[in-house]
Amino acid sequence: MSGSKAQIVGVGESKYARWGKIGDVTEHALACQAIQRAVEDAGLSMDDVDGLASFAEDRNEAVFIGAELGIPRLRFGNMVWMPGGGGGCAAVANAAMAVEAGQAEVVVVYRSLCQGQFFRFGSPGMDTSGAAEPEAPTVKQADSLMIASIGFVMPYGMLMAAAAYALPTRRHMHLYGTTGDQLGMLAVTFREHASRNPRAVMGGRPMTLDDYRASPMIADPHRLFDCCLESDGACAVVVTTPERARDLAKQPVEILASEQGAPKGYGFGTFSNANVPDELYATGANEEMANRLWGKAGIGPNDVDVAQLYDHFTGCVLMQLEDYGFCKRGEGGPFIESGALSWHGGSLPTNTHGGSLSEAYIHGLNHVVEGVRSLRGESTSPVENAEVCLVTSAACVPSSAVLLGRK
Amino acid sequence: MSGSKAQIVGVGESKYARWGKIGDVTEHALACQAIQRAVEDAGLSMDDVDGLASFAEDRNEAVFIGAELGIPRLRFGNMVWMPGGGGGCAAVANAAMAVEAGQAEVVVVYRSLCQGQFFRFGSPGMDTSGAAEPEAPTVKQADSLMIASIGFVMPYGMLMAAAAYALPTRRHMHLYGTTGDQLGMLAVTFREHASRNPRAVMGGRPMTLDDYRASPMIADPHRLFDCCLESDGACAVVVTTPERARDLAKQPVEILASEQGAPKGYGFGTFSNANVPDELYATGANEEMANRLWGKAGIGPNDVDVAQLYDHFTGCVLMQLEDYGFCKRGEGGPFIESGALSWHGGSLPTNTHGGSLSEAYIHGLNHVVEGVRSLRGESTSPVENAEVCLVTSAACVPSSAVLLGRK
Repeated sequence: MSGSKAQIVGVGESKYARWGKIGDVTEHALACQAIQRAVEDAGLSMDDVDGLASFAEDRNEAVFIGAELGIPRLRFGNMVWMPGGGGGCAAVANAAMAVEAGQAEVVVVYRSLCQGQFFRFGSPGMDTSGAAEPEAPTVKQADSLMIASIGFVMPYGMLMAAAAYALPTRRHMHLYGTTGDQLGMLAVTFREHASRNPRAVMGGRPMTLDDYRASPMIADPHRLFDCCLESDGACAVVVTTPERARDLAKQPVEILASEQGAPKGYGFGTFSNANVPDELYATGANEEMANRLWGKAGIGPNDVDVAQLYDHFTGCVLMQLEDYGFCKRGEGGPFIESGALSWHGGSLPTNTHGGSLSEAYIHGLNHVVEGVRSLRGESTSPVENAEVCLVTSAACVPSSAVLLGRK
Repeated sequence: MSGSKAQIVGVGESKYARWGKIGDVTEHALACQAIQRAVEDAGLSMDDVDGLASFAEDRNEAVFIGAELGIPRLRFGNMVWMPGGGGGCAAVANAAMAVEAGQAEVVVVYRSLCQGQFFRFGSPGMDTSGAAEPEAPTVKQADSLMIASIGFVMPYGMLMAAAAYALPTRRHMHLYGTTGDQLGMLAVTFREHASRNPRAVMGGRPMTLDDYRASPMIADPHRLFDCCLESDGACAVVVTTPERARDLAKQPVEILASEQGAPKGYGFGTFSNANVPDELYATGANEEMANRLWGKAGIGPNDVDVAQLYDHFTGCVLMQLEDYGFCKRGEGGPFIESGALSWHGGSLPTNTHGGSLSEAYIHGLNHVVEGVRSLRGESTSPVENAEVCLVTSAACVPSSAVLLGRK
């Protein structure tokens, strides 16, 4: 592990809440709160910050946040330019590049959302229900193009992400004998992790496999508890140089390697499945990117002590376990069944915060926050002596990943 | 000059036209055309491209362009996250970082706009005149915030960029005795360069200082010919590693250094002048960023052979000449009057393509294209043996700049 890599030195978040239930606070204020807490966690002040980065078309623009927080000068304002939630790790990678290239010294990556005040992320159309300003246009051209592309499948009932991602999951079940109970065990494991995490929206709501089985079917094979939450809240991560990291408040976590990828035919995601090559269909389409990531870091899946995997839907985690080589293709189901993902003695403790299924759906940037905490020994579901953590953003669409390391 | 820096190896553009006059072609198609030409200019194929970058909320998203052009895999999709036209050079800088950090190998930076089909860039409100889909929402939340911030000054007549930028220019005149004729000479010089450039929208329309003096006053001291064009068109720039650059079609141009900056109080630009510190008021607010740029490259203004300076308004070029140290503060007027900016014997040939005032307003990415051509000896207003070119994006708002070098 090289010592010249960018480091994560601070993490923070606002309160997380069910979407629309965050209370009388703006998305902008939540962003500021998360940034302030992350900067404070690092032992830095706003005067030190000279870069801001985000993804998924965050509405809280860098220059406005900079003005609000009194950041003296911005040298880097950066947005991942891929649709959807696949950009969380890429935004961290962009921050890392900036500090490694000397374009900035302290970059804060953040994601803030009050979906109740705007529209829900996975909505296929414009939804102004509960909008603070119902007349305000909330869908821009890029979204319109995305909507246009799914216009071909919507008449057949593909009205939401839960339906789109159901198809490759169902195919995985068909090809490999994966069962609903295996998906359910994954959801139960993450809920158990959430029960130990005071930040988790679903913290006070324990779940058994029977609860899972009894939950309503949303889009076969997706039951309610296969689907991530829809949340309001914000979180932030502070990235800086190894030199600056050396004498800050917390033990720095190194960004060992990062990769981003949108394989051919996956530009539009599974929303237009016709584009997706057959060999990628029942996968998260991340295998090639994963191999680049391992190659870059000079380590492999066996070196990973803890993982925070993007969990918009249970099946997408299952497919990522195979893409990243934690088990063979088709063996994700039995791997989950073995208890591998549990913080308590599992071989690959995963989503120790509860994930998007049970902590909050902050479009996966909360997975980076938890990745840092798990290496610092600050997780509420700690993994002893964890030195390497894999964090991923999305599957089945343009995705990204980072490998984090503790010295 | 180090040999490890990213290189620009290809440039290209679509036809440029007056806004709304590009004809029966979409913005998306223009983007593809410019990218194809730039990739071809480099002697590369679409299979080589693995990154796409842009700025100013380009509507033609990376994954859609990638799908359209058959790019096999995207490893980098990146958007400068600063409002307005100040991101052209920053987008090139982001591409450079990506290839230098090994996040991608061949990144195409592009900007495409059919303002006639959407809305004009500088409009303070939503303008759907001439829109292809008048019902389509074209203003998103960030723009709404920008609009909200200028809502305080709009009632007083500050309805457009030409008015906002008039204020610091008028103050410059008051402080330093700068004259309208000096601004006019700058416009005439750029028009003369355009007259030699077959791509220039204003190529066939010569202009004298008398024509300038007779042009209508838009917002004192801005006459019509102090204001940039509003154009439709697209251009693109291909960035790669020095290794890949070595045996491509054209002589590579090295990205010596880049910087980006939004000084405190300039988050909102001059649209809300109350925020701007007095000492920055009659400047382009770029002096600090310029000094970082010179420091990083280890060269100074005297080493620059040719400059392509963002020219949304004449006064902003004048102020940049001072910010970047080509002349002392307050001496921009006499510097222009000396003929310094002319390709024909001037000490600092500037905007050899005609600039945004007379070639086209592709939000300054065409300045990077011309910067490359001027170092390759391909400019239609060539500067003999030019080795170093400064390209800037914007002034008086969040800005960026790159120094380009030929070995």
